[in-house]
Amino acid sequence: MRISELSSRSGVPIATIKYYIREGLLPAGRPVAANQADYDEDHLRRLRLVRALVAVRGLPVSTAADVLAVLGGQGDGAGDGDGDGEGDGEGVHRTLGRVLGAMDTARARDHAASEAGLAEVRRLVAAMGWRVHPRSAAVDALARALDALDQLGVRIDTGALLPYARLAERTAEVDLDLLAAAPASSDLAEHAVLLTVLLDPALLVLRRLAQEHHSAARHPDPAGPGPG
Amino acid sequence: MRISELSSRSGVPIATIKYYIREGLLPAGRPVAANQADYDEDHLRRLRLVRALVAVRGLPVSTAADVLAVLGGQGDGAGDGDGDGEGDGEGVHRTLGRVLGAMDTARARDHAASEAGLAEVRRLVAAMGWRVHPRSAAVDALARALDALDQLGVRIDTGALLPYARLAERTAEVDLDLLAAAPASSDLAEHAVLLTVLLDPALLVLRRLAQEHHSAARHPDPAGPGPG
Repeated sequence: MRISELSSRSGVPIATIKYYIREGLLPAGRPVAANQADYDEDHLRRLRLVRALVAVRGLPVSTAADVLAVLGGQGDGAGDGDGDGEGDGEGVHRTLGRVLGAMDTARARDHAASEAGLAEVRRLVAAMGWRVHPRSAAVDALARALDALDQLGVRIDTGALLPYARLAERTAEVDLDLLAAAPASSDLAEHAVLLTVLLDPALLVLRRLAQEHHSAARHPDPAGPGPG
Repeated sequence: MRISELSSRSGVPIATIKYYIREGLLPAGRPVAANQADYDEDHLRRLRLVRALVAVRGLPVSTAADVLAVLGGQGDGAGDGDGDGEGDGEGVHRTLGRVLGAMDTARARDHAASEAGLAEVRRLVAAMGWRVHPRSAAVDALARALDALDQLGVRIDTGALLPYARLAERTAEVDLDLLAAAPASSDLAEHAVLLTVLLDPALLVLRRLAQEHHSAARHPDPAGPGPG
């Protein structure tokens, strides 16, 4: 298909598609004339994936490129999403770890967690009995969030975090059940990444909707809920 | 204090501080000489808040500016965080709604949710018995996340979302309990925003740690967990 059809089917403007190609997020089309290239269904799917990471998940373009490189093919300019054939559980676990690492380290570059924050996170991990890598990007990211709150006068200790950690544990169980129910035909690693990365904003929004409901219930507003 | 001290106490490079001032996220210092300005504790606190929103929460600078404008003072260049004195529950509820609206609309500008996605979200909200604004930015954001997954072949319907929604409801209850325990001296609206906005990444990280633990438990890896 022409780039105009790729644009209309994906809803992504042509200029944005060209930008993604320049930035290496989307492979170039197959040249068919001096100023014309041909795109196929793989391009459309890849473009939807890019769009989901950037516009829905809100990842910076450079981070989205890192995530796509982990998902396979695009980083070396060779393919468009057929991956390296990892379909078993261990492959999924490793791919997901690498994707989340790519997302977290991009944000952590100019910011180190404090020892106090890291110690708090380690206490929490121990209290939950979680067997996780003690120097993972996730541990560091959580410590930095606690540091930021602490510096602003909001002290969140292990005790305050424990109820959240227990709810996160049940969320992860729902995640893994959902993943186990994925169609056998799907690329399991990509499926896991999509569920994790794209459900992230959905889960935060659910928290907001629930906050809105309960906050309004605790503090009735005669003018009705606001638009925002 | 000089900008060099502001930099060393906050850990933010001088060039970045100057950039935040240019972008209106931080008020300029009080001029004391031709090439010198004086900064106070309010600047330091505001700078930490900016840093938390941008580097920890990962908001684009323009969105962080919108959030700060809602929190008061900075948008019209008048003050630095003393807000409009709203300390009651209704004020908190409204401020939080405006802040979350500022965060969501920034992302939604070039992307509309489908009717099918919106209908799915409305079914979920009805099933949960949540009383929320049917056209809120949060409803739209959730519908867009479902749209993106659907286009990539991952179908999440109301039934699959319900367990997440129930966990989100319990999370919101923990949030509101934590907020109710805030020190009486704190600015309640700012406290609510900090807990909501800065705990967002912390909750996602908890989900990842729990996923890592349970994924490894379901699929033991003889080489041990990876670094990511």
